[in-house]
Amino acid sequence: MPTSHFAATPQPPYYAVIFTSCRTEADAGYGETAARMEELARAVPGYLGIESARGADGFGITVSYWSSESAIAEWKRHLEHQAAQARGKREWYAHFEIRVAKVERAHSGPPPVHDQNVSGT
Amino acid sequence: MPTSHFAATPQPPYYAVIFTSCRTEADAGYGETAARMEELARAVPGYLGIESARGADGFGITVSYWSSESAIAEWKRHLEHQAAQARGKREWYAHFEIRVAKVERAHSGPPPVHDQNVSGT
Repeated sequence: MPTSHFAATPQPPYYAVIFTSCRTEADAGYGETAARMEELARAVPGYLGIESARGADGFGITVSYWSSESAIAEWKRHLEHQAAQARGKREWYAHFEIRVAKVERAHSGPPPVHDQNVSGT
Repeated sequence: MPTSHFAATPQPPYYAVIFTSCRTEADAGYGETAARMEELARAVPGYLGIESARGADGFGITVSYWSSESAIAEWKRHLEHQAAQARGKREWYAHFEIRVAKVERAHSGPPPVHDQNVSGT
């Protein structure tokens, strides 16, 4: 199981940027840019991790995690990120929604050794 | 473009439950239960919407939106939901993470008529 898909976030509180999007069929440069943005984001102080999924129908959700609002603001100001966002709006996304949220509590399951007594949601 | 994938949430603040998961290969009952849970959640007062994406690799993200913490608590207490969660832990999910977050601000783009002057992230 690719558990590396999960972000190893610390105890709350921290911040989440929830980006939901519907892709166009334009694909040129998209994969390379997405990989580059993840690489750049990792270098921003306060970056905590990212989780991403996209279905075959083109609808996707990416959640990035940050230690503070100021870390998010720094990432937003990054010039190469701004250029990628502009291109995303022109070419890659038919529509998107961005929500900035403060994570207040978190839990997980099941543990690596399968245990039916995991505490609940 | 399937814009119906997007949740029509109100102005913040409101709450988001971010559920990231990695599926097992066990599929029996999964689709029916997921559809039933969405139907039940819609009937809970304070439910605002849901967005969901899962890639071919089994990693998925579902974000449900709620007007308040008490709406989330009511959904958590729902008996049929609790039974589905227990089965999910036993059969359908290799691992999951749940984060409860307060959405503080939100914006979207591009508009339905493609316009390069959409205001930024």
